[in-house]
Amino acid sequence: MAAETSNFDLNALPDSEPCPFCVIASAYPYFDPNSPPNPSDDDVDPDKVSPASFIVLSTPTLLAFLDIMPLSPGHLLLCPRRHAQKLSDVSASEAAELGQYLRILSKALVKTTGVQDWNVVQNNGAAAAQVVNHVHYHLIPRPEIRASGRFSESFTMFGRGVRSELDDEEGVILAESLREGVRLVLEEEASKAKL
Amino acid sequence: MAAETSNFDLNALPDSEPCPFCVIASAYPYFDPNSPPNPSDDDVDPDKVSPASFIVLSTPTLLAFLDIMPLSPGHLLLCPRRHAQKLSDVSASEAAELGQYLRILSKALVKTTGVQDWNVVQNNGAAAAQVVNHVHYHLIPRPEIRASGRFSESFTMFGRGVRSELDDEEGVILAESLREGVRLVLEEEASKAKL
Repeated sequence: MAAETSNFDLNALPDSEPCPFCVIASAYPYFDPNSPPNPSDDDVDPDKVSPASFIVLSTPTLLAFLDIMPLSPGHLLLCPRRHAQKLSDVSASEAAELGQYLRILSKALVKTTGVQDWNVVQNNGAAAAQVVNHVHYHLIPRPEIRASGRFSESFTMFGRGVRSELDDEEGVILAESLREGVRLVLEEEASKAKL
Repeated sequence: MAAETSNFDLNALPDSEPCPFCVIASAYPYFDPNSPPNPSDDDVDPDKVSPASFIVLSTPTLLAFLDIMPLSPGHLLLCPRRHAQKLSDVSASEAAELGQYLRILSKALVKTTGVQDWNVVQNNGAAAAQVVNHVHYHLIPRPEIRASGRFSESFTMFGRGVRSELDDEEGVILAESLREGVRLVLEEEASKAKL
C-alpha cells in the first residue's frame, strides 16, 4: 500500500478498494434464520469470496459472520448489509435490528461455545481502532483466561490480544453450530411468546 | 469490602448491596427527550443519589448518564431501567430500544463534544471486565490521542486507560449539553422524516 510514485494520491485509496463487507453482503443471499442452510449449501459456501467467509446470519438487513482474525473461538461480527461507515450513519430501523440481533447472537454464542462471558464492541473511526470502514459490532467470547495466567489481569481489548487466523475447517463447523444456535434461540423465543 | 471475620459470607455481598444503576433508575423519573429539563429542575438534580448522577436520557425503558470515572469527556452509559445482568437477559424490545438509542446518543456525542471517533462497548461477566452487574453500554469519545503521544499506538480499552473522577460542575454542564444534543438530533430526525 506504500505510494510508489511521488504523485500517488493516497486519498484515492479508500474508494479504489472495494469494501470487504460490501463484497460479502453482495455474495451471500439472505436466508431464514429459523431454518438455516446446511454447510454444503452454496448459500453459505465460504469460498464465494476471498478471504473465505463463514456466515452465521443473513437477513435482508443484516449479516453476521466469523472474524477471520478471532480473539477467541466464536468471535463474530454483525453489520448492516448496506454500506455505512459509523453507527451514526445507519438508519433508525437498522439500529433497532442491530440491537435486537446483538441479544439473539449473544444468547447463541453462549449456547454454542459454553463461554458465559463476552464483550460487545463497536468502533467508530481510526482513533477508536476501526479498521474496516463498514459499521460493525464485534461479539467476543471471553473464556476465563485470567486464571490461566496467559494474560495479565487487565488485558488489552484490541491490538495486544492474541489474534490468530481462523482455520477454514474450524470456521465451517463453528459457523454451522452458531447458525443452529441462532435457530434454537429463536425457537425458544417463539415458544415463550406463545405461553 | 474485605472480610472482617472469618465466617463472613462473601457470596452474600452482591445481594446485600443495592445495584447502583437500580438506585439511579428509581431516583430519576422519565422525561421527554424532545424537551429535556433544565439543570435547575429537580428531575435531573445530580444529588438525588450518591455518588452524584448526571442524567442524559431518561425514558420509560432506558437511562443514560455520565460515567463517573470517564475515559474521556462525554463518556456515558446507556442501560435499561429494569435490572438485568447481561445482554442475554434483556427483553427483545429493550434490546431494540438500546440499539436505537446507541445511534441517537452517538450522534449527540459527536455533535456535543466535536469528537468524531468513539467506541461502543458492552461487557458481560467478570471475565469480560463487567464491573456493575446491571447490563450497560459504554459510549466513549476518542479524541485523536495518538498524535499527542500521550498513549502508545494501541491503547488499552479498559483498565489501563487514564480514568479520572468526573468533576461535579463539569458533569452538570456536560449532561445539559448532551440532553440538548439528543433533543437536536431527534428534531433533525423528525424534520427529515417529514420531507
